[in-house]
Amino acid sequence: MDGGITTMTGAEALVRTLVACGMEACFANPGTSEMHFVSALDRVGGLRCVLGLAEGVVSGAADGYARMAGKPAAILLHCGPGLANALSNLHNARRARSPVVAIVGDHATHHRAWDAPLTADVEGTARPYSDWVRTAQSARTVAADGAAAVQAARTPPGQIATLILPADTAWTEAPGPAEPLPIPSALPPAPAQVETAARILRRGGAEVLLLLGGAALSEAGQRDAFRIAAATGAGVLAQMSNARIPRGRGRFPIERVPYPVDLALERLSRFRASILVGAKHPVAFFAYPGKPSSLLPEGCAVHVLARPDQDAVAALAALADEVATGVPPPAANDGRPADPPRGAVTSEGIAAVLAALLPEGAIVVDEGVTTGRGFFPATHAAAPHDWLQLTGGSIGEGIPLALGAAIACPGRRVVGLQADGSALYTVQGLWSLARERADATIIIFANRRYAILRHELANVGANPGRTALDLLDLGNPDLDWVRIAQGFGVEAAAAADLATLADLLRASFARRGPFLIELAVP
Amino acid sequence: MDGGITTMTGAEALVRTLVACGMEACFANPGTSEMHFVSALDRVGGLRCVLGLAEGVVSGAADGYARMAGKPAAILLHCGPGLANALSNLHNARRARSPVVAIVGDHATHHRAWDAPLTADVEGTARPYSDWVRTAQSARTVAADGAAAVQAARTPPGQIATLILPADTAWTEAPGPAEPLPIPSALPPAPAQVETAARILRRGGAEVLLLLGGAALSEAGQRDAFRIAAATGAGVLAQMSNARIPRGRGRFPIERVPYPVDLALERLSRFRASILVGAKHPVAFFAYPGKPSSLLPEGCAVHVLARPDQDAVAALAALADEVATGVPPPAANDGRPADPPRGAVTSEGIAAVLAALLPEGAIVVDEGVTTGRGFFPATHAAAPHDWLQLTGGSIGEGIPLALGAAIACPGRRVVGLQADGSALYTVQGLWSLARERADATIIIFANRRYAILRHELANVGANPGRTALDLLDLGNPDLDWVRIAQGFGVEAAAAADLATLADLLRASFARRGPFLIELAVP
Repeated sequence: MDGGITTMTGAEALVRTLVACGMEACFANPGTSEMHFVSALDRVGGLRCVLGLAEGVVSGAADGYARMAGKPAAILLHCGPGLANALSNLHNARRARSPVVAIVGDHATHHRAWDAPLTADVEGTARPYSDWVRTAQSARTVAADGAAAVQAARTPPGQIATLILPADTAWTEAPGPAEPLPIPSALPPAPAQVETAARILRRGGAEVLLLLGGAALSEAGQRDAFRIAAATGAGVLAQMSNARIPRGRGRFPIERVPYPVDLALERLSRFRASILVGAKHPVAFFAYPGKPSSLLPEGCAVHVLARPDQDAVAALAALADEVATGVPPPAANDGRPADPPRGAVTSEGIAAVLAALLPEGAIVVDEGVTTGRGFFPATHAAAPHDWLQLTGGSIGEGIPLALGAAIACPGRRVVGLQADGSALYTVQGLWSLARERADATIIIFANRRYAILRHELANVGANPGRTALDLLDLGNPDLDWVRIAQGFGVEAAAAADLATLADLLRASFARRGPFLIELAVP
Repeated sequence: MDGGITTMTGAEALVRTLVACGMEACFANPGTSEMHFVSALDRVGGLRCVLGLAEGVVSGAADGYARMAGKPAAILLHCGPGLANALSNLHNARRARSPVVAIVGDHATHHRAWDAPLTADVEGTARPYSDWVRTAQSARTVAADGAAAVQAARTPPGQIATLILPADTAWTEAPGPAEPLPIPSALPPAPAQVETAARILRRGGAEVLLLLGGAALSEAGQRDAFRIAAATGAGVLAQMSNARIPRGRGRFPIERVPYPVDLALERLSRFRASILVGAKHPVAFFAYPGKPSSLLPEGCAVHVLARPDQDAVAALAALADEVATGVPPPAANDGRPADPPRGAVTSEGIAAVLAALLPEGAIVVDEGVTTGRGFFPATHAAAPHDWLQLTGGSIGEGIPLALGAAIACPGRRVVGLQADGSALYTVQGLWSLARERADATIIIFANRRYAILRHELANVGANPGRTALDLLDLGNPDLDWVRIAQGFGVEAAAAADLATLADLLRASFARRGPFLIELAVP
């Protein structure tokens, strides 16, 4: 403050730019090449920094943050291999259309040619899982690169923008931060898209499916979709996997396309036309010999009312104006769920306990895999909440999603419905929950096997042998989730019946900070 | 056995081919698209299957296996994101020049166009970290693809071969297994390479560095290198990071290029010429402002006696014939280390305890990072053992390396020297150690911070603030490694002084199976 010339590094110019662009959170697992960025964080302020002990925690948390905050977090990663460890959950984030700004530190530009041990093809690593990739070329331009990365991430419907930051572009003196760039809005639906949808509905509403995804699943989107359905007899479904669905009392009893192929085919068999609203053509999660890839019946017409980059809410409103003027939405979810049941653990019982006890404003992170598939019908009348699913199918995102959601929404309780096999991929995230004192209750569905694969193996061969079964079995030795959680600094307890589950949930909801429940499920 | 026509799937033909090619181990984290492969494992037999709870465990274990078995293991991964999770340790394996055959299950070919949630660019994911990539096109050819993958992996000096296996190429009927393909030998060194090295040594031996890497560090290679040094006055060093160094009594007191740049520059400052034997030009691990990338003094000539794909042992033997005929090797490491010291934990004290207690034939897996750098001088006279380092600089490979080494070498004790921050990336590997009853003792150096980054941060800025320090700190909450290990099924205990460390080491060496020691280090 002596009136002299202030100088700053490229890293500081970049951090100041990110803050100026409205970024507020940074999930990080840094290394040596990121130390100038880390050092700049203190000088600038304004970014809440959350350390993840493994990169999958970092990228999954950014996904959860973006889904709940409606804007991107930054993630900070170390070189090509550090980015590689984050890709799986970047894949999931991309399938959720979550905006993420990934900053990947790398060797100084002049050091690359020497092929030091950590040298890797960082752009090549980023490209299959990013919508936008740029390597900063100098400290003069790195701040502008940062502004461009934020713009790219926030371009509807949300993108993965990866900015590679060679160490010298971070440590060299820079002219200063860059101006934020304008953020594009979602494109309006074309009138013809709306008119065609209206014509299809007028021709045979009961045979038409309105398939919702993305922003179409917002409260406003659901309300108009259910109005359209009430007026025309059309069916309404959400996609199989969704980034975020507002649910519970006062919302609508939306259901999803089922995961098991045969069930999905049956569920969709009555439709002659499908109107996609921010959703994709429904397809089988995996292919199976002799079964179709498309879940729509043969000959079913497909019409796109709103692409993911279009304004699905406006499209539904315009369509409702065409076909449902004056029609009120059907009755919203109402009534109060029964008291939580007691007794042996069943899928229905868990759902009933959740329905009774979910606190208002809860954020449910559902990576329950086999255990959680049937939870929707029983929880329609739970207190209002948001339901987040694994969108990209790469298991190992539940705990990180819970972390990111908790950072985005202080004061709301996060409830993780967590398959044990899936939880193991990013179990390190428990420590970040503890450090951040995240209000997150994680229920581990401990069935001690990759149950979904046991089903799939049964589909494949007659009598699976010992080798195959061992590869799908999480026993021998059994995992002790209570000790694991405590080892990472998270209080934990085990439950083997519904009454204990309910007691532990009530207790965890009544206090701050994280809690883990190891629930033995059959 | 009824004389009828036997049929088999593409998966079974592939597994039979891998076994025919001499493969004996498969580290796996499978998903739905790999179920036909998994199912075939039982029908075929011959591949020991080891489940990893996260893909980094799988690829790191394959690296450890290859280093000790001298041949590749197969790894089995699920789709692009599953491969992505394995890339970091494939990077390390590649830098170790370990052969690995990666089998990546993917969607059926006809399902790809539907862009199901797990669809990703698998070839694009593989390419930056593989030397050979192929996507199987049909069940008719998949067995031949497997034979080609093994050949590629075993092509000197060892490669990462990635075979992508669309589900329909695995489940469709196949004509049968393929014949193994010939495995190329390492190329002989050209006479001119040897003659030039001899000329350089004759001109000024004391100013010449013999820098060894790969097979040059075998017992035979070291012996000839030390003979050449004895005859010419040349210096001998191993690279900074090495896949495997035979050490201890009866071997030679080889030292490595130091990690800290200033130390390395000083150590190499006297050399006017450097002869690379299976080694690369020595470079700084990271670049720093104002410091050079190359660790050799300016003007230092560089001559390649053997490239990594050439026979480094033969090259050293030929060079010894030129310059050291009749010269015996210098005295090998001898003497018996003193009894283990007691008292407070210091780096020197840990090294002395190891020197005293390492069992004969031990396999030391060194991911000690800051704690382990000074262990070599004190352990030259330990019982004969192999020393494995992190070769690619991507931390998080120690526990998987220990797993793979234990599978490759039953009956030998694996001793993991493991930094706490690094151990966290693949902590799930503890469970595989327990399940496989691996004879592995893991010493966690619990300094509760990313100590290496604290050093680097200090280099970068004057007064690091709270945000920066928090990002490098593993406390708040402290990790409880004993509980974490027990949670994964591994017995464990804590030590805070050298006497307890020695007692726990002795006890663990006297029994079968894994054990973890949480050692509080300053």
